[in-house]
Amino acid sequence: MNITIIGVGLIGGSLAMRLKETNFASAIIGIDNNKENLEKALQLNIIDSLSDLEAGVKEADLIVLAIPVDAIQQLLPNVLDLISKNQVVMEMGSTKQEILDSVDRHQNRGRLVACHPMAGTEYSGPEAALRDLFEGKNMVFCDITRTDEDAFELAESVCEELQMNPIFMHAKEHDLHAAYVSHISHITSFGLALTVLEKEKSQGRIFELASGGFASTVRLAKSSAEMWVPIFKQNREHVLEVLEEHVRQLKLFHDLLEKEDYPAVLKLIKQANKIKRIIK
Amino acid sequence: MNITIIGVGLIGGSLAMRLKETNFASAIIGIDNNKENLEKALQLNIIDSLSDLEAGVKEADLIVLAIPVDAIQQLLPNVLDLISKNQVVMEMGSTKQEILDSVDRHQNRGRLVACHPMAGTEYSGPEAALRDLFEGKNMVFCDITRTDEDAFELAESVCEELQMNPIFMHAKEHDLHAAYVSHISHITSFGLALTVLEKEKSQGRIFELASGGFASTVRLAKSSAEMWVPIFKQNREHVLEVLEEHVRQLKLFHDLLEKEDYPAVLKLIKQANKIKRIIK
Repeated sequence: MNITIIGVGLIGGSLAMRLKETNFASAIIGIDNNKENLEKALQLNIIDSLSDLEAGVKEADLIVLAIPVDAIQQLLPNVLDLISKNQVVMEMGSTKQEILDSVDRHQNRGRLVACHPMAGTEYSGPEAALRDLFEGKNMVFCDITRTDEDAFELAESVCEELQMNPIFMHAKEHDLHAAYVSHISHITSFGLALTVLEKEKSQGRIFELASGGFASTVRLAKSSAEMWVPIFKQNREHVLEVLEEHVRQLKLFHDLLEKEDYPAVLKLIKQANKIKRIIK
Repeated sequence: MNITIIGVGLIGGSLAMRLKETNFASAIIGIDNNKENLEKALQLNIIDSLSDLEAGVKEADLIVLAIPVDAIQQLLPNVLDLISKNQVVMEMGSTKQEILDSVDRHQNRGRLVACHPMAGTEYSGPEAALRDLFEGKNMVFCDITRTDEDAFELAESVCEELQMNPIFMHAKEHDLHAAYVSHISHITSFGLALTVLEKEKSQGRIFELASGGFASTVRLAKSSAEMWVPIFKQNREHVLEVLEEHVRQLKLFHDLLEKEDYPAVLKLIKQANKIKRIIK
């Protein structure tokens, strides 16, 4: 099967590596605005050839969009315009509602599979791609009743090749949950990095005390700004809601510590410890 | 050399494992209020024998305190009362100023080495101990001019055996920096866990979207409440200061997103990305 991947970065590149390894893809065609990344992906043998949008889409049985969510929203109607009824498009954006709204009445809506692989790292570009990035992770499929049965079956095979667990959600439900468990983690990390970098200006030695705990909490602050601003934009309302709740929790912590109500701080931490039953 | 470890948990246990492995310790004597942990440490061969405070301190060339900081503050004067001029005490608390203030005028103050190994995990107890926990990490020594030269030399050898890099700071400077790079990370994680757990009450499926990013940011929320409340208490002023700065950064993020100033959000994230030069 010919697969065209639009966006040969961490997600697109990792997908290409795995689908070549299992021989699910006979040829991978790469498309990317960033010519440097495209050349790198070719050199790294992640893609077999490069193309432009029109030719690349025409040659493919399956087209995968793995670009920032604003670029998906902009490009997806064009891609659906270009395909025929035996081609399938998978978009892998981190947000869903706005993207799906923008193609809601498109005549080829049935050929589109909206999905979000719950996998990633703080790095980007084809050099960051990993053949086992998706293994054992969840793949969220959204509003799948709007997708043609054969198109979904193909996407399901891709999911299987990637060794992912399929999960089903409404786009709206997806965006709310993603705000709570993914988007807020990034804001927390960005905020923590900013807090500490601010202090470092006057206190040069601060990082001598940084240990593994700090590194793990701040890791996501290395994430790409160009990828994340569009996500926050498209999921703005949910992100604001969860951010307000998070600030409320931090203020509660602050106020209890300020008035030295240590039994209440202990209770709060014990409540937070309950995350153990979810995160192993 | 006989070493008595007061508190056979993650830190004390890991120290014992490594110092036995290198034969620096000929015998490790364990003391712990928690009898269950003491028995486990014996079973796991982390300690060679168990004792009570008075006998355990008397038998040792080196006494290590690796218990919560409130317990260190309470016990340290008694330990210094019990020792003679050829014994050495290392206290490994995560805060320093209050602990050192409480023994400032003790006649055996010179036998005390105040240090803080910048290593740990979110787990506690002797089963959590790791023989290589300290390897390559920083060991912060505080107010070392108040320690006798021979006592510090012994502590320096321990540091070497653990393969740690020694660093020197004033207690006050240590507590401020620790608030910024260690204590705040824990509060951020506790706050994130509370935020998400709060939402989960009404949205059972939320964790299907949790990925590696969320797990890494929330990892520290599993940390022991009994250990952390005394740290926040002893380092309360610095922790409040950094928490206020952190909330300020999160609110700035919130307000820019609310008024849809995306260029400013982009700039903020690019600023946060600068953490790359510190955390590899």
